[in-house]
Amino acid sequence: MDCRADGRTADKLRPFILDRDVPGAAPGRVLVRAGNTTILCTASIDEEVPPWLAGKGKGWITAEYNMMPGSTAPRKRRDRGVKLDGRTSEIQRLIGRSLRAGVDLSAIGERTITVDCDVMLADGGTRTASITGGFVALVEALRTLEDFAGKPLPLVDTVAAVSVGIVDGKALLDLDYREDVRADVDMNVVMTGQGKFIEVQGSGEEATFDQEQLFALIALAKQGIAELTQKQRETIGLSGLKLR
Amino acid sequence: MDCRADGRTADKLRPFILDRDVPGAAPGRVLVRAGNTTILCTASIDEEVPPWLAGKGKGWITAEYNMMPGSTAPRKRRDRGVKLDGRTSEIQRLIGRSLRAGVDLSAIGERTITVDCDVMLADGGTRTASITGGFVALVEALRTLEDFAGKPLPLVDTVAAVSVGIVDGKALLDLDYREDVRADVDMNVVMTGQGKFIEVQGSGEEATFDQEQLFALIALAKQGIAELTQKQRETIGLSGLKLR
Amino acid sequence: MDCRADGRTADKLRPFILDRDVPGAAPGRVLVRAGNTTILCTASIDEEVPPWLAGKGKGWITAEYNMMPGSTAPRKRRDRGVKLDGRTSEIQRLIGRSLRAGVDLSAIGERTITVDCDVMLADGGTRTASITGGFVALVEALRTLEDFAGKPLPLVDTVAAVSVGIVDGKALLDLDYREDVRADVDMNVVMTGQGKFIEVQGSGEEATFDQEQLFALIALAKQGIAELTQKQRETIGLSGLKLR
Amino acid sequence: MDCRADGRTADKLRPFILDRDVPGAAPGRVLVRAGNTTILCTASIDEEVPPWLAGKGKGWITAEYNMMPGSTAPRKRRDRGVKLDGRTSEIQRLIGRSLRAGVDLSAIGERTITVDCDVMLADGGTRTASITGGFVALVEALRTLEDFAGKPLPLVDTVAAVSVGIVDGKALLDLDYREDVRADVDMNVVMTGQGKFIEVQGSGEEATFDQEQLFALIALAKQGIAELTQKQRETIGLSGLKLR
Amino acid sequence: MDCRADGRTADKLRPFILDRDVPGAAPGRVLVRAGNTTILCTASIDEEVPPWLAGKGKGWITAEYNMMPGSTAPRKRRDRGVKLDGRTSEIQRLIGRSLRAGVDLSAIGERTITVDCDVMLADGGTRTASITGGFVALVEALRTLEDFAGKPLPLVDTVAAVSVGIVDGKALLDLDYREDVRADVDMNVVMTGQGKFIEVQGSGEEATFDQEQLFALIALAKQGIAELTQKQRETIGLSGLKLR
Amino acid sequence: MDCRADGRTADKLRPFILDRDVPGAAPGRVLVRAGNTTILCTASIDEEVPPWLAGKGKGWITAEYNMMPGSTAPRKRRDRGVKLDGRTSEIQRLIGRSLRAGVDLSAIGERTITVDCDVMLADGGTRTASITGGFVALVEALRTLEDFAGKPLPLVDTVAAVSVGIVDGKALLDLDYREDVRADVDMNVVMTGQGKFIEVQGSGEEATFDQEQLFALIALAKQGIAELTQKQRETIGLSGLKLR
Repeated sequence: MDCRADGRTADKLRPFILDRDVPGAAPGRVLVRAGNTTILCTASIDEEVPPWLAGKGKGWITAEYNMMPGSTAPRKRRDRGVKLDGRTSEIQRLIGRSLRAGVDLSAIGERTITVDCDVMLADGGTRTASITGGFVALVEALRTLEDFAGKPLPLVDTVAAVSVGIVDGKALLDLDYREDVRADVDMNVVMTGQGKFIEVQGSGEEATFDQEQLFALIALAKQGIAELTQKQRETIGLSGLKLR
Repeated sequence: MDCRADGRTADKLRPFILDRDVPGAAPGRVLVRAGNTTILCTASIDEEVPPWLAGKGKGWITAEYNMMPGSTAPRKRRDRGVKLDGRTSEIQRLIGRSLRAGVDLSAIGERTITVDCDVMLADGGTRTASITGGFVALVEALRTLEDFAGKPLPLVDTVAAVSVGIVDGKALLDLDYREDVRADVDMNVVMTGQGKFIEVQGSGEEATFDQEQLFALIALAKQGIAELTQKQRETIGLSGLKLR
Repeated sequence: MDCRADGRTADKLRPFILDRDVPGAAPGRVLVRAGNTTILCTASIDEEVPPWLAGKGKGWITAEYNMMPGSTAPRKRRDRGVKLDGRTSEIQRLIGRSLRAGVDLSAIGERTITVDCDVMLADGGTRTASITGGFVALVEALRTLEDFAGKPLPLVDTVAAVSVGIVDGKALLDLDYREDVRADVDMNVVMTGQGKFIEVQGSGEEATFDQEQLFALIALAKQGIAELTQKQRETIGLSGLKLR
Repeated sequence: MDCRADGRTADKLRPFILDRDVPGAAPGRVLVRAGNTTILCTASIDEEVPPWLAGKGKGWITAEYNMMPGSTAPRKRRDRGVKLDGRTSEIQRLIGRSLRAGVDLSAIGERTITVDCDVMLADGGTRTASITGGFVALVEALRTLEDFAGKPLPLVDTVAAVSVGIVDGKALLDLDYREDVRADVDMNVVMTGQGKFIEVQGSGEEATFDQEQLFALIALAKQGIAELTQKQRETIGLSGLKLR
Repeated sequence: MDCRADGRTADKLRPFILDRDVPGAAPGRVLVRAGNTTILCTASIDEEVPPWLAGKGKGWITAEYNMMPGSTAPRKRRDRGVKLDGRTSEIQRLIGRSLRAGVDLSAIGERTITVDCDVMLADGGTRTASITGGFVALVEALRTLEDFAGKPLPLVDTVAAVSVGIVDGKALLDLDYREDVRADVDMNVVMTGQGKFIEVQGSGEEATFDQEQLFALIALAKQGIAELTQKQRETIGLSGLKLR
Repeated sequence: MDCRADGRTADKLRPFILDRDVPGAAPGRVLVRAGNTTILCTASIDEEVPPWLAGKGKGWITAEYNMMPGSTAPRKRRDRGVKLDGRTSEIQRLIGRSLRAGVDLSAIGERTITVDCDVMLADGGTRTASITGGFVALVEALRTLEDFAGKPLPLVDTVAAVSVGIVDGKALLDLDYREDVRADVDMNVVMTGQGKFIEVQGSGEEATFDQEQLFALIALAKQGIAELTQKQRETIGLSGLKLR
């Protein structure tokens, strides 16, 4: 198998780091790095749920995604005062939906946990790294709640994500920015630690793909997510946690 | 195979109608109906491209999606003066991307074709019906251009879409609203007339799905799209057109 | 009397159609056509009144007016996220005020009825056709309320409207777009079925008019509205209704 | 004829003052008072026209209307950052249209004159007083232009306006706020100094009016405007100006 | 000491006038003039406090600052529908903070007093004149409250402000616009009648200043404010009031 | 001298760190920490100036300040789509003005350098730490420009800032959040490395201060800034740079 610009084989992840030693006031904080891509994930807890969920004894998890001004050169403009662009809105809906699939919302009380994903350096795969890192920040935040002191956390399973794509006709795992730009097909896959799918989003921009390619991409993603799950478990020590 | 609330079998589409006899000033106009779901699709041509595409000799296709106030009861508020909500933005990005995959943008000149999908009655599957109907409006609009008088239209292939989902553990084709609300997994699939994938978006809201289910949904979608493609061809008479 | 571009005499309405067979979820739905001008009018009922009217035992009727993107060529931009332009706001205030004059608001309960007028094809006279058609949609919506089952509807009178204007020194009834553009004086008149005025709005843009012209325009409008009232009565069968 | 709360007969204007001694930087400045109603009108000149008028050798006149926070008790909120409400937008469109009818736009060069009407004290009739006072500010501003030094100003005629209405079945001239609130029919009339109509806007809110009432209101307005025209001529000394 | 463009010595205020005879509906109204600079200050009373202060038995004072369209030539655009610019926001926060320092908020009841400062003619020093004039309007408004009939007003002290600056290396009092533009250092000082500081804001735009200059500016401001305090006391007759 | 909650004497800075090893794409990047307060400062270069400065051969420096969502508990809401609040706008204007005073704008070419200050953890003094850290990021960015390779940077002087305040009648240096909340007087001072003032902003919220206190605060700030300047010089190695 030929190697890529950075020497990786087609089925190899970029170096992946989850760093929990980050300054901040939010109860959950993780700096996630996938190659150059660097994202600050913080999870904050609000003792209220959105109005439409009030009084149902259930909690809520939501996410916000943001490219910091220094995350790209030239500088990324802030989205202050302008309407949220479609891409950002789509990404943060995906992150929120994915994280909710990993938590037993009926067991966290009438609270909202907001996971903020602020991209410090963007080099491809920011939405999937946000999910993988955001899940760890979310677990950290849950750990600060007295309700769960000495008890298993209300987790269904771990949640991790990776991007795959077809570049020059070849299926690649974990695309960096240069590969992403050249990809004919781009797919994001979100899975649980036990290998169930949460989300599959494959899309050909001015291109199409056949069923064989679709299945090859899915296989590649499964393998990558298995590795990321392992990193998550090491970081948050879930081995000792009973998943619900 | 048991039948559904409306008596359909799991693999059966709702009655599907493409009506080209619609008042309006836009060059392409189609009323699409899938069961109760009714959408007015119009395609307008602007002799300009967005700034970032100017001077490249290439055209652009974009879409706008809107729920009309009378499309739901209680009434759907207009999104005037408020920021576009995430769902709407995500849907119209999907429609635009899907339609672009069916047209040879380098062959339509420096024009923008905007496909507007205004939902008159919402009963599930509005985004996929918008794609299937919007493609027909787009073709109608292309036909009004003198550039293609007596020549084949600059089409790569036809484009159609359908929703599939898992309800009560069973894979169903073309969900109506009541089914959609109860679905554990919801998937939208966009394909060309020749059976290539343009977009696959499967998502479990507070649920997961395994690989077997994923593949079953894809098979069901392929079959439904083949039928819709047939309807499109009858409506727009593409049999006589040479696809590029 | 010389005839106009479309062969009409000065005092002749365009062909006028009220079509109640329209898909949608709102309880009142009418497609109104005056010549080419085509407008979808829907009336929705909300079991609440605006805050300033709460607790007074009285209902409210309001209207929204919108040009659909395909109603003009070139395409009409949506007013999403931008402030409502003055013309639109003025038109929907006029429609709401006019419709309220035809209904006994103290007899409809603490409800808000919103009449939405979405222009599908614009060829002059959209605001007056919105009033004439919107009144029919409003009546349809009132009919769905159980309060009035087997009782007369809480109507004061029917409400209809027409435009008149002075083109090349001559007073004309029911201007189409080309005539409207050339008009020195433009007047919209709203009246009840029994011949009372609700609204008279005459305006010379960079032009003036004398009293004789004013009175001629009013006479022409009265005659046109009498015909439109007849069409409304045929459509909604008000002959059997006791007006309050 | 019985008198009103303030002792006026039905056909009597409130005390009307045009004061040109007002601090400000705009070339045209007038404080207009109609009874208690007090409005600061300023006219500013910009050496540019709106884009759609550029290059046609013609000028433009536009107006902005604003209620100052201290003009009412309780305080009127500023419309900063919120969308312009329908009433304000409607009023300033009326003022602009009315003023344009008095000036030969093709003779003022490619300039925009903006007439700002800031209400300092609101007691009914603010829109008509804005027109009558705004016309004087406009003339003052035109006088500062060197183009017209020693020449007649490019005026078609003077422009003035007044409100009339039906209160307790009686037609009244120049309503104050308490009368306006009780009026069944409210009409604003704009005329030239030579007795031509520019605008007639009569409206019954939850009420109707017959033709006799309509004609009585128009007669009353004509008489009031003749008096206001006289005041304008005294203030701006148009007697020596040749109207075009 | 050399004199300035308008003949003043460096330590001389511009002619300063406080005029209480101003039309309006707000209970406190003052027209303040400092040289050409002219500002309409009105103070309105609302029988409510902001949500965050509710139930604490304390009142609130806030300010809004606005340049009227005719206050500059070319015309100043209104800030309707656009976000409040930084300068305006900064100024009105300064005015509010300054006025609050002069009033015993715990003695005015749960009321909000809004002081509106609308600049009619801008010639430098508008923010400081707004404070000096706004304080007088505020006192007028307090006087209309029955709570204080026959009792001392709940004032801590009078509040006045002035600008100072360094122009061509020289410290000047009360800069007009031409001086302000040329100033290397610009300082606004707010003080009480008894000589305490409320606010000191000195700033060098692309310039710096040393401690000696800083102290000279402060001395100049103290002297100017003493004179303005005297004018305020004459206008509002505080000599007979017991300050708390 | 008694010590404070954290054991510091009144004239002692919190531990101050400037860390240049930060991921990101912007050419200048510094993490600044003053006690717990932590701010990511990045400086980006755009090869354009704002329109009003174009063609003058001069550059521009501007700043944006933002509290990240995880910087406070409870979570700080993002200011997306809402108008920028007054405090934020005031802070970023102060930062921009301060940084400009340290650079020879006429020597950096027609470029805009934007310094972004994103607060990761807020514990008082964020605006002054943003200035001190932002200046270092700015210098780093200037160093990446080829124009200055092997030449002195176009600096006038270093720029640093600190807060001082009066708490319980005592003047304190470098207030943390708990002290800031209790302060009667709050002052921010910005100075150059050579001891000149750039900005002095002292303010008593519902309190006043006398001249003696003012001078004591200034003395304290001078001393603190001298220490911060020393830290800056160590970090950016300005000892070898010739200041202009």
